[in-house]
Amino acid sequence: MLLMKRFCCGFQRIIAITKTRQPGDTLEVRGWIKSVRRLKNNVFFDISDGSTMQKFQIVVPKSEQLKTISAGNLVKVVGQLQVAPQGHYELHANSLETIGQHDPEYVREYLHLRSRTSCTAAIMRLRHKAQMALHEFMDKHDFIHINTPILTTNDCEGAGEVFTVQPDSNELLKQMSRPSVPLNQSYFDSKVYLSVSGQLHLESMSYGLGNTYTISPAFRAENCKSPLHLSEFYMFEAELVFIENLEELCRFIEKMIKSVTNDILKSSEADIQYCQNQTVRENFNLEWLRDAWPILSYNEASDIILRNKEKFKTAVKSNEGFSKEQELFLVDYCKAPVFVVNWPAAQKPFYMKISREDPSKVHALDLLMPVVAELCGGSLRECDVNRLQEHPHFPEGLEWYLELRKFGGLPTGGFGMGFERFLQLLTGVKNIRDVIPFPRYPHSCKM
Amino acid sequence: MLLMKRFCCGFQRIIAITKTRQPGDTLEVRGWIKSVRRLKNNVFFDISDGSTMQKFQIVVPKSEQLKTISAGNLVKVVGQLQVAPQGHYELHANSLETIGQHDPEYVREYLHLRSRTSCTAAIMRLRHKAQMALHEFMDKHDFIHINTPILTTNDCEGAGEVFTVQPDSNELLKQMSRPSVPLNQSYFDSKVYLSVSGQLHLESMSYGLGNTYTISPAFRAENCKSPLHLSEFYMFEAELVFIENLEELCRFIEKMIKSVTNDILKSSEADIQYCQNQTVRENFNLEWLRDAWPILSYNEASDIILRNKEKFKTAVKSNEGFSKEQELFLVDYCKAPVFVVNWPAAQKPFYMKISREDPSKVHALDLLMPVVAELCGGSLRECDVNRLQEHPHFPEGLEWYLELRKFGGLPTGGFGMGFERFLQLLTGVKNIRDVIPFPRYPHSCKM
Repeated sequence: MLLMKRFCCGFQRIIAITKTRQPGDTLEVRGWIKSVRRLKNNVFFDISDGSTMQKFQIVVPKSEQLKTISAGNLVKVVGQLQVAPQGHYELHANSLETIGQHDPEYVREYLHLRSRTSCTAAIMRLRHKAQMALHEFMDKHDFIHINTPILTTNDCEGAGEVFTVQPDSNELLKQMSRPSVPLNQSYFDSKVYLSVSGQLHLESMSYGLGNTYTISPAFRAENCKSPLHLSEFYMFEAELVFIENLEELCRFIEKMIKSVTNDILKSSEADIQYCQNQTVRENFNLEWLRDAWPILSYNEASDIILRNKEKFKTAVKSNEGFSKEQELFLVDYCKAPVFVVNWPAAQKPFYMKISREDPSKVHALDLLMPVVAELCGGSLRECDVNRLQEHPHFPEGLEWYLELRKFGGLPTGGFGMGFERFLQLLTGVKNIRDVIPFPRYPHSCKM
Repeated sequence: MLLMKRFCCGFQRIIAITKTRQPGDTLEVRGWIKSVRRLKNNVFFDISDGSTMQKFQIVVPKSEQLKTISAGNLVKVVGQLQVAPQGHYELHANSLETIGQHDPEYVREYLHLRSRTSCTAAIMRLRHKAQMALHEFMDKHDFIHINTPILTTNDCEGAGEVFTVQPDSNELLKQMSRPSVPLNQSYFDSKVYLSVSGQLHLESMSYGLGNTYTISPAFRAENCKSPLHLSEFYMFEAELVFIENLEELCRFIEKMIKSVTNDILKSSEADIQYCQNQTVRENFNLEWLRDAWPILSYNEASDIILRNKEKFKTAVKSNEGFSKEQELFLVDYCKAPVFVVNWPAAQKPFYMKISREDPSKVHALDLLMPVVAELCGGSLRECDVNRLQEHPHFPEGLEWYLELRKFGGLPTGGFGMGFERFLQLLTGVKNIRDVIPFPRYPHSCKM
């Protein structure tokens, strides 16, 4: 509340300046830059704060800081009110602060106003176009979009990091109670979680519909403040039928990401350029669009990491997967995005297909990209009901997943891609909280 | 579990018939009909159950029941194994039961297998094409799709019928606890609900981005078994900027629904026809596509209802809105879908714009359609911060909603449409649980 007050009080709305202020007064105005004129010594901005159609002129001495400012930026200006040669009032700025452009942390405090900054607006338009491009690509390839459920009784993939859901009203819970059901579960007659992935549900649909996909919210109750994690995020997931070969799945993913990215570059060139300019990182580029993406086996990737172990901050442990630092090293080493395939079964979940040649391995893939490291994870699915049933970690309550295969196991495979990470890959935006309209993370659920 | 067993045991898989059975044996097979040949006295089906590429022939005496059966139907057949004149085995059926076609209640018990029935598959393809058509229409009209949040601290529109969310792990809650926050709220530092509508969030985005929309899940913790309600459902919501006239909003909705429906009819003619054939209702048709949709004021609509009060099962109460029966009567009376506008302020929420001519009314609309009755609700939004602030029911915790207007109130208006109801309108499917892949309702959250 303190921050809120700082933001909305103490500044002057443009509509009232001529009525309440006099030349020489020091005042603060806030608004959006509508136009910029750069003269020899000064830069002139017209700003608007929504209080009136009339724009208000700001005069600022030229400086390095002003080079990146452009129409659309939200600014906070403190200065002296003066009369311009043409007779109207103008503000001679002592200080000018852009909101949003260089301080996403600050803007994030005002989620409800954030769409008014050029950067957030550009990202939201881009986000929309990226979803459109995904839908269009999948539709063109005859995939059916399935709204996988948000509420689910399946917690098996959450590894304990799940949210539970119940009605807010105790009265309702009592009304609906049944003798054999704990009171807080009486609405659905069972414990209900927020979905962590739509994969298993997609599989059940693919058994009848063929290829399916979803762009759905997913949830993780982690106490994690990493710039790559959110408590509520979007997963793009797809399930392909009659697929018996992991390389085929890798090639589909590569083709999809390249095609969709090219579509987005066409529909959103200006927005993507704007984002990249705001978030420039060393070596940031989209060269991966032109490269062919190599495939490494887990053993090959491990060997590369082990041969270079002195280069990593974190100790290299075999059979524990790779750290983000190691993943980015592999991308750098291959000079391209890279698929790592055929993982040790012990590191991966029960539904992945065991290699018939080497039962210690599963047909799993991770796609490692520049900037974000792991972008996709996927696998062929075990379609042999007996092998599944005998898996030491086959979860309770998933009898229906076995049932799917009892009428004939269909060879399917699929993958998931963190949609926000994909946006970070395209824009270079450092914090995942800035590529989703309403970020939810530990200790923060605004609005 | 009992039902599950009944379904998966005791029947014969096609692949093993020749090995384990002999002519004269009575057996049960289950599978999908691949082809149908109707001869003079008998109907011949080839069925497949996924256990082998080989199809298996069923012979059934002609009957009324068989008229609606077609390739793609899932059936359960009991009969005697015999040797056909050509030498292969065939089953002479004593009983044949279709699953899915005539008993959606039965099929719903096996959610994970439901996509294998023709009807569910047709609806899911249609659902996908309907979402595509909505996205394409909105994109073409320069609306930006916004993923409104699922988790929200705003419960003001839930009228008490909300779900709450917290991490499943008590350990995590303890780890994250802070002195001033109740333990079960320690993850987000506040009580968090599942969204009942994305409208207010869309508004905040529209203030920066212009026209926005969303197709998002929404949640209601009601103990309601109506065939028009779900605990988890999808809302299509849009927010339009610079709109000052309710009729303009009505015309946009009419144009959008007609255009999208025509697109869906083009992309999914066969599927929509199939659904309609399965669910025939008296007078079901899409004539509303050709009609112009009249606009009635609430007062006019009330007068019509009162003049016909003897026709209704439920008593007519003035100033309480209309019952579903009365809504359908109004549609019938107008011989077209009808907008009811300018509602008593007392019946509608705080954010609707008060009529400046008659402050007892708000600029709200309901769109009433055949089959489903209320399909859309919408309004102009109050953009005068002072009127909003003084509203007797302005909710606590929505200071940000006032803030939006403090930098200049933008005239906006918008509406929401229950996406599943729209699908019911197109297909005639009676129960809303059959137009969503994974229905959630009181005492049921399968998978």
